[in-house]
Amino acid sequence: MSDAFVSAAADLLGERGLLTAEADTAPFTRDWLDRFGVPPVAVARPASVDELAALMRLAAEHDLAVTPQGGNTGLLGASVAGEAPTVIVAFSRMSRVLDVDPIGFTVTVEAGATLAAVHEAVAAHGLALPLHLGSEGTAQIGGLIATNAGGSHAMRFGMMQDQVLGLEAVLADGRIYDAARPLIKDNAGYHLARLFCGSEGTLGLITKAVLRLQPALTHTATALLTAPSLAALEEAAAPLRRNLGSLLTALEFFHETGLALLERHVEGITRPVETPGPLYLLAEVASAADLPLSDILEAAMVGALEAGAFTDGAVASSEAQRAAFWRLREEMPEGQRREGLQLKHDVAVPVGRLAGFVDRASTVASDILPSVRINPFGHLGDGNVHFNLSPPEGTADFSGKAEALTNAIYETAVAEGGTFAAEHGLGQAKVAMADRLRPPVERDLTRTIKAAFDPKGRLNPGKVL
Amino acid sequence: MSDAFVSAAADLLGERGLLTAEADTAPFTRDWLDRFGVPPVAVARPASVDELAALMRLAAEHDLAVTPQGGNTGLLGASVAGEAPTVIVAFSRMSRVLDVDPIGFTVTVEAGATLAAVHEAVAAHGLALPLHLGSEGTAQIGGLIATNAGGSHAMRFGMMQDQVLGLEAVLADGRIYDAARPLIKDNAGYHLARLFCGSEGTLGLITKAVLRLQPALTHTATALLTAPSLAALEEAAAPLRRNLGSLLTALEFFHETGLALLERHVEGITRPVETPGPLYLLAEVASAADLPLSDILEAAMVGALEAGAFTDGAVASSEAQRAAFWRLREEMPEGQRREGLQLKHDVAVPVGRLAGFVDRASTVASDILPSVRINPFGHLGDGNVHFNLSPPEGTADFSGKAEALTNAIYETAVAEGGTFAAEHGLGQAKVAMADRLRPPVERDLTRTIKAAFDPKGRLNPGKVL
Repeated sequence: MSDAFVSAAADLLGERGLLTAEADTAPFTRDWLDRFGVPPVAVARPASVDELAALMRLAAEHDLAVTPQGGNTGLLGASVAGEAPTVIVAFSRMSRVLDVDPIGFTVTVEAGATLAAVHEAVAAHGLALPLHLGSEGTAQIGGLIATNAGGSHAMRFGMMQDQVLGLEAVLADGRIYDAARPLIKDNAGYHLARLFCGSEGTLGLITKAVLRLQPALTHTATALLTAPSLAALEEAAAPLRRNLGSLLTALEFFHETGLALLERHVEGITRPVETPGPLYLLAEVASAADLPLSDILEAAMVGALEAGAFTDGAVASSEAQRAAFWRLREEMPEGQRREGLQLKHDVAVPVGRLAGFVDRASTVASDILPSVRINPFGHLGDGNVHFNLSPPEGTADFSGKAEALTNAIYETAVAEGGTFAAEHGLGQAKVAMADRLRPPVERDLTRTIKAAFDPKGRLNPGKVL
Repeated sequence: MSDAFVSAAADLLGERGLLTAEADTAPFTRDWLDRFGVPPVAVARPASVDELAALMRLAAEHDLAVTPQGGNTGLLGASVAGEAPTVIVAFSRMSRVLDVDPIGFTVTVEAGATLAAVHEAVAAHGLALPLHLGSEGTAQIGGLIATNAGGSHAMRFGMMQDQVLGLEAVLADGRIYDAARPLIKDNAGYHLARLFCGSEGTLGLITKAVLRLQPALTHTATALLTAPSLAALEEAAAPLRRNLGSLLTALEFFHETGLALLERHVEGITRPVETPGPLYLLAEVASAADLPLSDILEAAMVGALEAGAFTDGAVASSEAQRAAFWRLREEMPEGQRREGLQLKHDVAVPVGRLAGFVDRASTVASDILPSVRINPFGHLGDGNVHFNLSPPEGTADFSGKAEALTNAIYETAVAEGGTFAAEHGLGQAKVAMADRLRPPVERDLTRTIKAAFDPKGRLNPGKVL
């Protein structure tokens, strides 16, 4: 079965378009945390949507599963093969930035373009795609849409789904859904393009997208503040948001526990202010217009300091200091990684319940494993917290309690009205969790849509569902 | 069949909850342009989601169609009964603003709350739902979501779908989809809530929603400019957008033709600047932060004037002058209505192709009916143009060419990469147009989803599909 497919696919795609030797397919086999993935039947590299459509018909004839793979930077195993015999589709030959529209503020791009390539193409026109991730040099637009990526600007500009105006995708049976329209307003039927956002390749393979752009934010000001508690930060954040409005582009927080790990493991870390937190807030304002942003940010901070919400604070006086502030937040994962074994939890709760969640989850975790070290950091503006654990000081692992800790933390998030999958999706890793923690009707509707789009279940099986 | 249903529904909902006398159901029977709607079997007014769920099971048993009706302010017949025996569901007893979260910047609201009621409730907390329509005193949140309403702030804040974080809906078989979660980031499966946005009651009946709020925009500055052509306006708009960034909240345009009709029919209209357009642009900047917005706007305008894009311009120096500027734009439909018979077309094209569309559509329309009067106005920032026609001066109608004109205009929009349904949806009025002008695969997928959610086709039949 596979041999006949490989032969026909090689005829279709040519030598460059189909990889079958193990040495060639190996880089596509495992996810980058090396937790998921079995060898595929082949890796297909179509050069056009029509080639991909023909390939999908061929895969259907041979009853093969198809898994799209973007930059393979996901954390949950969505972009590698599961159990069924699978063809992986890679988009490295469909990676052009097709058109930047400097009047309409849109970019049309093939699925395989990296986020960094899009940033570069649109920056030349004074425009920006307001999505920023650590992996932007590798992550591809198709994968970013399919996983509905979040990142550090989501508070202000939303997630990937909020940037997508239209897209083109190949369906399970090889039909082409062509709605790559650069329209802001288009109420001529269901908004199907948005349904593909976050569907992780289970409804179709995204081949092209039209994304909305913003004016480049050419002016910024950045502050770092300390507060006695996350609850105090949460209270103080609301008036900052009300006073600064859409100038405010980031509200990132971290904890003394994380800062201490950074100081222990990472070179060149300097404490930003003398007062130790225990909580730290990085606030940034930015604009396209030329505004006195440092003065504006300082005035807003002074109000909050006088109200007693913060204990200390500083506005960056140079680009170097700004970079130093951001480095504290961005190196958080690295500091903890170097400390040894860890448990990471990507959780979101309603913005006003972040402090409550961290309190309760901390109690729950400490009850399961006394002295477990808790290092919460994340996005105060959108309720997304990376609630990460290290073993108790002096111990190397979680004493067999890892699964109990993870389950308890996700259950606590859901009990607080939150989610166990904030910006990383479900992939293979969290399917069972979704079946357990999401309302049955919601899971039923998800299965209903999946069955309608892909009745034979050949599109990225084992992911999402 | 209907009698048995009415009897059982009356037991379920009580006297206040079920209207069957013709005098009582009459206000729900026709759309407000009085073009669509046949008398329903009954009008149900459930007081809770559980009552509605029980009603939906009852309607299923009796094989009755169900049509949800919000404020009944739609223009295309989506919220009144079609041919099948139909129960209309009204939401006047499910109209509470349940919760405003001043920390999380969200509001939880029942489907029957009016937009104006939500505005009032959130304003008390210094917050805003950035959606504004002429009908906001009547239009209800459920209907605004089901039709994915647009309005004058869509350029900056998106449409209704961009405000919806989560929702609750009752499905065709009476199951309750409960995902009214106030989460900014939630990647735990398909984003089903967004699928209901714009589905016009054909997938389920929305009962509750959680909406994202913004800081109230407490500062504004408004300018009115004239330009020699729409193409010149379009060119000038892009640098304004780049320079002003997210401060810019409105870019509305209108034409000398419309202004002349206003002067002819509406009291108290004053020309804003001496130079006659023929094109006029209303630009507004707004912020939550206290910024020198008039200076900022003036500086941006001076640059554009010096570059020759505009021929004249003024910044409003008082709230009264600002209101006078806005009145010109907002009274455009009224001026034309008083002139007599008209043809209205709600079209959107890519932002950078608005001038091209208006040129081509004008040629096409004049070819069909020489001297037809063309009055384009709308939203320069999102490509949405109301391309409205009046008969040639001195004639009372379109000489039997109305249908030909409408078809040609929509076809021209589609040929320019645009849509024949921008912010008003499909309803009953544009279903045939959608079948003709949308790609077959897109319509097939729409039918696929509809059949999966509502296999017997009882949810608002004849709308969208």
